[in-house]
This record gives sequence, C-alpha cells and structure tokens, in this order.
Amino acid sequence: MLIVMHRKASRKHIDAVTLAVKKMGLTAKSIPGSQRTAIGVLGNKGYIDDSNIRYLPGVKEVIHVTKPYKMVSRDFHPRETLIKVGDSEIGKGKKPVVIAGPCAVESEDQIVKTAVAVKRMGADLLRGGAFKPRTGPHTFQGLKKEGLILLALAKKETGLPVVTEVMTPENVELVDQYADVLQVGARNMQNFDLLRELGRIKKPVLLKRGMSATIEEFLGAAEYIYAEGNHKVILCERGIRTFETATRYSLDLSVIPLVNELSHLPLIVDPSHATGKRSLVPPMAKAALVAGAHGIMVEVHPEPDKALSDGPQSLTIEEFGKLMEEIKNLISFLGF
Amino acid sequence: MLIVMHRKASRKHIDAVTLAVKKMGLTAKSIPGSQRTAIGVLGNKGYIDDSNIRYLPGVKEVIHVTKPYKMVSRDFHPRETLIKVGDSEIGKGKKPVVIAGPCAVESEDQIVKTAVAVKRMGADLLRGGAFKPRTGPHTFQGLKKEGLILLALAKKETGLPVVTEVMTPENVELVDQYADVLQVGARNMQNFDLLRELGRIKKPVLLKRGMSATIEEFLGAAEYIYAEGNHKVILCERGIRTFETATRYSLDLSVIPLVNELSHLPLIVDPSHATGKRSLVPPMAKAALVAGAHGIMVEVHPEPDKALSDGPQSLTIEEFGKLMEEIKNLISFLGF
Amino acid sequence: MLIVMHRKASRKHIDAVTLAVKKMGLTAKSIPGSQRTAIGVLGNKGYIDDSNIRYLPGVKEVIHVTKPYKMVSRDFHPRETLIKVGDSEIGKGKKPVVIAGPCAVESEDQIVKTAVAVKRMGADLLRGGAFKPRTGPHTFQGLKKEGLILLALAKKETGLPVVTEVMTPENVELVDQYADVLQVGARNMQNFDLLRELGRIKKPVLLKRGMSATIEEFLGAAEYIYAEGNHKVILCERGIRTFETATRYSLDLSVIPLVNELSHLPLIVDPSHATGKRSLVPPMAKAALVAGAHGIMVEVHPEPDKALSDGPQSLTIEEFGKLMEEIKNLISFLGF
Amino acid sequence: MLIVMHRKASRKHIDAVTLAVKKMGLTAKSIPGSQRTAIGVLGNKGYIDDSNIRYLPGVKEVIHVTKPYKMVSRDFHPRETLIKVGDSEIGKGKKPVVIAGPCAVESEDQIVKTAVAVKRMGADLLRGGAFKPRTGPHTFQGLKKEGLILLALAKKETGLPVVTEVMTPENVELVDQYADVLQVGARNMQNFDLLRELGRIKKPVLLKRGMSATIEEFLGAAEYIYAEGNHKVILCERGIRTFETATRYSLDLSVIPLVNELSHLPLIVDPSHATGKRSLVPPMAKAALVAGAHGIMVEVHPEPDKALSDGPQSLTIEEFGKLMEEIKNLISFLGF
Repeated sequence: MLIVMHRKASRKHIDAVTLAVKKMGLTAKSIPGSQRTAIGVLGNKGYIDDSNIRYLPGVKEVIHVTKPYKMVSRDFHPRETLIKVGDSEIGKGKKPVVIAGPCAVESEDQIVKTAVAVKRMGADLLRGGAFKPRTGPHTFQGLKKEGLILLALAKKETGLPVVTEVMTPENVELVDQYADVLQVGARNMQNFDLLRELGRIKKPVLLKRGMSATIEEFLGAAEYIYAEGNHKVILCERGIRTFETATRYSLDLSVIPLVNELSHLPLIVDPSHATGKRSLVPPMAKAALVAGAHGIMVEVHPEPDKALSDGPQSLTIEEFGKLMEEIKNLISFLGF
Repeated sequence: MLIVMHRKASRKHIDAVTLAVKKMGLTAKSIPGSQRTAIGVLGNKGYIDDSNIRYLPGVKEVIHVTKPYKMVSRDFHPRETLIKVGDSEIGKGKKPVVIAGPCAVESEDQIVKTAVAVKRMGADLLRGGAFKPRTGPHTFQGLKKEGLILLALAKKETGLPVVTEVMTPENVELVDQYADVLQVGARNMQNFDLLRELGRIKKPVLLKRGMSATIEEFLGAAEYIYAEGNHKVILCERGIRTFETATRYSLDLSVIPLVNELSHLPLIVDPSHATGKRSLVPPMAKAALVAGAHGIMVEVHPEPDKALSDGPQSLTIEEFGKLMEEIKNLISFLGF
Repeated sequence: MLIVMHRKASRKHIDAVTLAVKKMGLTAKSIPGSQRTAIGVLGNKGYIDDSNIRYLPGVKEVIHVTKPYKMVSRDFHPRETLIKVGDSEIGKGKKPVVIAGPCAVESEDQIVKTAVAVKRMGADLLRGGAFKPRTGPHTFQGLKKEGLILLALAKKETGLPVVTEVMTPENVELVDQYADVLQVGARNMQNFDLLRELGRIKKPVLLKRGMSATIEEFLGAAEYIYAEGNHKVILCERGIRTFETATRYSLDLSVIPLVNELSHLPLIVDPSHATGKRSLVPPMAKAALVAGAHGIMVEVHPEPDKALSDGPQSLTIEEFGKLMEEIKNLISFLGF
Repeated sequence: MLIVMHRKASRKHIDAVTLAVKKMGLTAKSIPGSQRTAIGVLGNKGYIDDSNIRYLPGVKEVIHVTKPYKMVSRDFHPRETLIKVGDSEIGKGKKPVVIAGPCAVESEDQIVKTAVAVKRMGADLLRGGAFKPRTGPHTFQGLKKEGLILLALAKKETGLPVVTEVMTPENVELVDQYADVLQVGARNMQNFDLLRELGRIKKPVLLKRGMSATIEEFLGAAEYIYAEGNHKVILCERGIRTFETATRYSLDLSVIPLVNELSHLPLIVDPSHATGKRSLVPPMAKAALVAGAHGIMVEVHPEPDKALSDGPQSLTIEEFGKLMEEIKNLISFLGF
C-alpha cells in the first residue's frame, strides 16, 4: 500500500500517518520528494483495510499496490534517479556511459592492458569478473580475491572505476572493498538474501535481468535492494531465454522505453552476453543507445581466442576502438 | 547440394555439370554471378554421393547443404538483392523505406485520409489490411475485395505504392491486381502452398517472420518463394513469442545484423505488431534503423481509439509526423 | 455473444430471439441441447448492446464472450462430442484410440507392411503423410496423390481407417476422397482458409496445436471449422516450442485436463513429434492416457534408420508391439 | 575429463593415474563402482592433453567431457542412486513417494492439522515452507525459524520426515537442524554458493529445476552438490516458463524418462507449482508416476482460500484423500 500525502502536508500529518500504520502492525517507509511525500506500507500479508488512514489529515490518496514493486516505480518517485560513478552520472538526461572490459579477469597483463586500451578509447568504467558463475563445477570459476586485487591495480593505472560481480551475501563486504559498482548476475537476480545484503551498502549496484525474468520480477528484484536503503540501483538488460538458438539469448530492447515509463532507475544494456556473437555487438550497442539506454556494457579482450570464457562474444581492442568512434558520433547526434 | 564453379569455368563446363545432375534424377538451378556461377541441386532426399560431379572440369567446390535454404544465402549469391517499389529501392546501401498505414482498411475516408497524411509526412509506401487473419471466426475479418479497391483509390490519390496481405493461394491473383507488394502474415509463414504461389508472380513479396520461427525456418520459407522463381523477397521481423507479457511479442532486433550476414535479401522491421504499445513504437523504429534494417513498417490510424483492430499500437497522425521528423534526421546521420 | 435460453423456452421464443439478432445485422446460430437451447451470435465487430435481446421472453442469460471461441466451449455445448471413425468412437468416456503408422508414406511395401503389423498389434487407425510440410523446399515433400492411393491400399488390406494431412484448401477435395480423418498440421493451425474449407466437409478433422499456439488460439482455430458446420473436430497436442532443446518440442500434457474443462471436443496426444526421441515415446504415451487423453498418435516405421523423415522418433514394429501390450493393460486399469 | 579404468585395474594402477593427474595441476576424484573404477578429473580450464594418462596401465578409456556434469551422469556411475528418508527409499525400482503439505507454514494449527491428515491418507513426507522466496519484498516471506520449529512439532506428532526450503548458505546450518530433506527452490537452482554449502552436509537435498533451466544446466547444478561430497540429491521438475499463460508454468514431463537416461539420481515431480491450478494437479500427478517419476510433491492446505500463498493450486484435505486413493491403485498397477 502506498499513501500519497498532499503537497502541503506537514511533518505532523506525516508522523500521524506513520503512527497509524505502525498501530496496524505494519512498517511505514517515508520518502520525501521535492513536491510531496509518499509513505510506503510494508509487511502486510494481502489486502489492507485502509479506513484508519484514508481520512487522516494530509492524505491525498491511498494506492493499493498489486505489483511486487512500488519504491522503484515512477508513481512513488517521479524524478529520475541519477547515479554518480567516478566522473560519470548514469541516468536519464545524462551522457550514456560505456562500460568495457573482459568477461573474466585472467592475469595482471590481460586486465591492465585492456584497461589502458579501453580508457584511451573513451570507456567510462572497467568491467571484469573475479567471481564467475558457471553451469558446472569443473570449469574456471574466476580468480576470486586475486582478481579483485588485479582490478584495483588496473583502476590505479587508469583511473577507471570498476564494475565486478558478487555472487553471495558473505562476499559483499570483500567485493565492496575493491569495486566501485557491485554487479548481480542474471542467475542471482532472485537471490533475495544477496539483494538485501546489497541494500545495506553505500555503493551502486548493477542488477542484471534474469534470463527468464518478466519486467515485473526484474523491478521486484530492484525493489529488494531499494527497500533496504540503497537507492543506487542500475538495471541491466542482457537478453532473455527464448526458443531462438541463432543467438545466445534474445536481446529484449523493448524493455528500454518500457522500463523508462515504469521506473525512475537507470537502465543499461549488455549486448555481448545477449548475442554471444562478436559481429552482432556493435549494431546492438548502437540500437540500445538510440532506444534510450543510459549506457552499454561491452566485453573486450586483447586476445579473444585465448579467453578463458566467452571469447566468441568479446571484441578485440581494435574492434572496440572502431565501435567507440561510432558511439561518440551517435551520442553527439543524440544531443549529449 | 551447392556446386561452386571456378571463376573461369566455361558455359560448356556448366552444361556438363547440369547434365550430370539431371542424370542423377535431380534438378540443377544455375545462378550466374558477377564473379562465378553456382549451381544449386534440388530434389534430393537426403545426402547425395557427389563422386560423379566433384571431379568434373570447372568445379571448384561441392558444398553439402544441411540448412533448409541455399538460394537466399550469401554463399549462393553474395551480392545484395535490391528491390524496386515505386520510387524506392529496398536493400543494403539504399535509403531505408518507411511503410505506414492502418492495420485494417475500414472505410474510404479512413484509408484515404491516412494515405494523404502519411504521404505528406514522407512515407514511401502505404500499408493496410484487406484480408485480416483473426484468432477466432467471430471477429472482423477485413473488407476483403472492397478493401483492395479502397487501397487502389488511396494509391491513386497519393501515388503511394500499396502493401497488403494475402492469406490463401487462390487469392494471390486477386491481390496481385491491386497490390504493389504482397504480404505474407506471420501465421502463414509456413503455408508452403501460398509461398509457392507467390513464387510465381512478378511483384515483390513481404514475408513476415512466424511468431515462433527460427532464423533457419524464416530463411527456409523465403527459399520457397525464391526457388519458385520470384527473387523479390523482403523479409520482415515482427516480434517473437516469449514468456514476456509486458509487450505483445518480443522484438528480436538481433536478427537484423544476423540475417544481413546470412542472406542477401533485404530485411525490414515492424515495431507496431511486435510491441503492441504505441509509446514503444518510435524508439524501436529508430533502434531498428540504427541496427541496419532496410526499412520500417508502422501502423498509423487517424483515430486509433475507434480502430477495428490493433488500436492500442497505432500511432496517431500527429505522432507519426513527429516520428518522421526524427527518422529523417536519423537517416541523414546514417549517411543516406 | 451467447444467448442462453430457459429450459422451457418455446420454439416461438427462440425464433423471436433469432429474428432480433438478425435485425441487428448479425447472424444467429442455434444449437439445441438436451436441456436447453443456446444461440450463438456471430459477425459482430466488438461489443454488442444487448438491450434488445436480454429482456425477450425465454432468455435466461446473455453472455458476452471475450474469448475467440464459443461453439467449441462447454458453456455453449456441455455434452461431450463423440466422433465415430471406423469401429472406434473418440471422446470422453470411450476407450482411448491408438493411431499408428509412419511419418511419411514412402512405398507400397513400407505402408502396407506397417499397416498389417500395427493392425495385428491392436492399432485402431493408420496414420501416414502423403503431403509433407518441410522447412525448406529442397527436401522430400511426400508422395502426394500417389501416397493417398497407397494409403487406400493399406486400408483395403487391413480395414484400418486412415488419417492423413491436407495442407491447402484446394487439396481438401482430393484428400477427402481417400482419408477417413483429415489432419491439419501444426504449421497450418492458423491457415484460416484451410480451416474454413474443412468446415464444409463431412469427415472428421484432426487439428494439431500450433507450436506456439496458446490454448485460446488452439480452440479459436477449432472454432473456425466448427462454426462452418463440421462439428467433428479432434484436437491434438504435439508439443510446444520452448527454450529446451533436449527434446524436439516440449510436450504440454497439462492441456489435457485443461482442454477437457474448457471444451467438449476430444483431445489426443502425439508424443512422437513432441519428443523427437524414440525412447521417450512410450512413457509419454502412457502419461497422456492417464492424464485423460482420448487417444494417442504414434509413429511406427519398419526400418526407422532408413526413413525419409523423422526416423529418430519412430518406433520399430517390435517396440510398438511392446508399447501396445503396456497400453492394453493401462487402458484396462483405467476402466475401459 | 573422465578416466575409465579396466575392471581388473589394481589399486596401484589407480594410484598411478591419480598421481599423473595431480602432476598436471588437476584434481582426481575416484569413485569405486561394483564393476570398475572411474576417475573424474576436475579443475581444468578447457581441453586437456591426455597423452600422459591414456597409455598408463589399467586405463580402459579417457572420455573428454563437454557437458557441465559428469559425476551425476550414468557414464560415471551406472547404478541407481537410492536415497533413504524416514521409512522410504527414493529412486528407481522403489515405491514412489508422496510428499504433501502446505506451500507455507502459517501456524501451529495449520501445519499440525495438515500433517495429521496427510499422514492418515498415506503421505510419506511432509512439506512446508518456512523461508519463502517472493517476487517483491513487501509480501509474506515465511515464518522463518518459527516455521522450522512448527515443522518439527508436526513431525513429532506424525513421524513424517520434513522437506523444507533453504535460501541462503548461512541458513543451511539452521535448516539442517530441523529438516530431513533440504530443498533448493527454482530461483536458487544456480545459486552456486548455496549448492556448494549443501554439498557439505549429510542430509538429502531436493533440487528444483530452474524455471528456464535446460536439462544440462539442471544436472550441472546437481553436480555442484554432488562434487562437493553430498551424493544424496533428489531432482524435482516443477514446470518451465513458456509463452503459455493458461497454466502457471508448463510442466515438462518428458524430462522424467530423459533424466532417467542421463543420470542415476532420483527425480520427483511437483504438479502444484507447475500448473498453478487445483483441478490440474491430480491428472498431472498420476501422469508423472506413469512416466517414471520416483515421487510427487503436492500442495495441500486445510483452507486453501485463506492460504497466505498459492491457495489456488492447493488441494483441500478431501481432494488429497481422493487423489491418494487413485495413486495407491496406480502404484499397485505399476507393480510396487
């Protein structure tokens, strides 16, 4: 349930509503906006009788939410969320960001070389996996802490903020020490304890859409992080699982305008994992930006053929340089 | 099986190969290219022993095709297919076309009004359904022949060439009299007798991808038309059926670069049917063009709220005008 | 719109309602039941104002149908539809039927040999394709008329009624001369002209579910045949297209009880096309029967390894014999 | 890589192979079978040169595994895995088990009442969720530890072993104290840290298939638990996400015979979550058993209309009683 207060509702009105909610055994979360305050009611098991609240002074409207999210919705918070990372600000109205780097951190040479190159070509953030989710236990699972240390080194060399995945609640603290943005992978989109843990940190979280997650479930997952107190959530479309096998997943670009209507959170697109095919990455990256994505995340590897994971979808440094030229022109055409 | 001849293979060499194929009880189709000739072998039931052919003079290579298509593939025909309709030429390297109009032709007033408006705003072709496939038999199925006559009238008023659907082999002759481009709907993508019938006409065919068709099946369907003799096939992506219900279908834009790699046929995109939601049409139309689509097909209705079908996804004339402004800038940015 | 009459409504009441419907420019189809008459209203474009009908004498209820089907629904016709073919009756409460035979008719020897064998083992009907839909034009498309003649021969030898596919409206007359049941393939489920043509014949139609058809679309397709006058429609589940590639399609057995709730039409299951894998056919055939299917359709080939199509999913004659033993026991356990 | 030893290979031969593997920087896991020993090689990043191993004495064959699982495959371990829980043994050749109970534990009265009833009607295990994964954070998330205590109480009253979900690695120890079988939910199927943690306990794990997991990914997830040392893994099919919305998910019964071919692990089926509709549960439960499932898991609630979650798919106690009668007859027909 969402209680929308009048523009001119006083602090006293808001406190009275909060108290009334508590008396019902529920939790009230108030989020002050520039124009009005809204109060989210959490903890109910099903529909709530709102007769004790609806007529309190200062209450404009009571909305019974049937969706699994409300705090990340535009109804609750009409202004865009803008998230600052390094020199960039991610979100609507801001210049789209480019996140680039290898699928997995493999060695000092590989990650530093890539970081220096993508920095030179204009990337805004560096990506690289230290913890890798893999279908079976018998393949390369990432360099783990050693990978984090190498990412920190690459950051030191280039100044690029670092995005890297965290897979389990107990590693949040460790990854938080090294990363500028903590990524939740598609397989963990509904790992609710991980989401809650990430809701308690200060750094931005990049939340990838699950491969069979509906938009409602995607925003519901973002709500877990947001409701816990961390409002810096960046959504990331990375392809959904469909019957089509010609591409690795089916990149669902329609979610860009759709999520922009439903939520105030920024949304970026990862065309590398979605397509699984190097030659499809540049056209899909550009399509995403034209459709309104607030950034793209692209895999780049100095030697894709020797990559320990996802080689076929990684751009070479030269290919990335070419893409960046095109993207710079496109971003400028789009008015940034 | 595909027999690739040497660049310098003579007419005599080609004839000898053709004869050898016939002796095996199969059919040979030769397609002369600018650089070399290739000979497609049709009619086999499974793998063919090529020992009678492989060593004939002039034969460069024998490729055993496991894909359901070959004549529409780049291996067979490396040059782009360009298709002339009215003043436009559709295909790679040419200015992308805009096809606009209502889902269904409903009345003279509606179709003429729409045609005049979209012409003024810069559309290249007019679309409008006279025969409408509908899930159940108890809903509006189109004005049929009357609809075709109204389309002809709208063409006369505006000069816009007309694209309209044909649903059954026996109506091909009728629709051919009125249409400039005959459309095969998604539900009929594997109506093979319809495809064959369309392979025997002279006019271009716009083939929509089936809602659960793989790329291989899509190109296999195009092959039916092409193999019958009509090489003017325009492919059209219109969204695939997935688990996501927030949009009507999931628009699969990755097929644009993918099909461009696999086939020489032009490919356009229909963002209206794919998304089912007016506000998503403009961003998806622009994304398609940036990804390399050779045109877009958009639903426009003077009064979408009164449309007999697909109102929620139709742009108003004003919205279409605004989209055309954006598209003109984008097309110019893309170098056309 | 569906007008439900009182049990005791007189002929005169019914005629008055029919007249009122006609005055509205619509068509009334009356179906007398054992308990009451219902009148289906066809031809409307959207919602109908029912004020001229609702209060006529004898009218019990007016139901506004939003589903694409009504005549095939239980609301319209609560009694089971039972369809007689040869010695069998197909539908709820009757002994489930077994339809067996090769994917495609290939030769006299093949089809007669198979027919004799499956007859001996207890099959009720013979299947075999004379017209074969294939993804590309360059593979075996069936023996066509020759195949129909061979099926007739196999029927003469064994007495088994014959089920075979028809792919185009213009072939309905031809296939009708040879077949006892005319099959619509999954790719043609929404070939509406074919469905309408089949609605005008007297013989039963076996309608396969499209590979991405929802239940609503499946019953909507059946409605096309039924509304045209042919009430002998047998539905057939044959697997849907999903992300899973370990089986050819995903056999959706939940539709058995679901369709039995929604419709009075019989439903059979084809586990051969669904799974694409011989070893999965027997367990899925038995699962279908326990779930309430009114029959199964199974591919059997004397030499699956040499089959021109779908060999890997065909049972050998020995395997079919073993399955029939199990099925006989199971059917007897189920009380038939 | 999998090294298959000769039947008569000696301990010395095996040790020599193990040593050779270690020298390559890899890990060898030996699993002695009744007939022969196989040695699984773990830890490699890609293909391994096997020239140092292939010709060692006692080596019969070296299999290069491309699948993400090997220890759970029949190649590695041809005998059935049978898992003892309470008085039941779960797996091929054993009487199928029935697991019944509410979706979520709600109160002492609810869980004890249900436990007593399902025990009386013949259930073998009790299910009930104390930790509930929910799409959004604002709905009932389970009674947590209190729920575990209530489950223990219900077990004490009835003797029924308890199956309940664990959602996060740090709760494994807690849940392990109360549960007889620890369940991994569909959303956590690829929560690899949770899987590894469960690989270190002694109790059986019931692993639900992810809603968009392929069979390969499903068995890959089981491999995580198995490889860590816990061989008591029970697989559970619970429906996959497809385009069909008439049922909640699409129950994929073909996996029963398929998984039985690929793996030695037992597989049960949950028709309640799959269909989401009470009336479909009994036919699907019976179909699963006939197809070879080693058990079923069914939701039962004394008052489904008041259930805090998943009411529409829960059977009443009376309905469950009726289903148990049918299942007892069916199991007896199947020869148990």
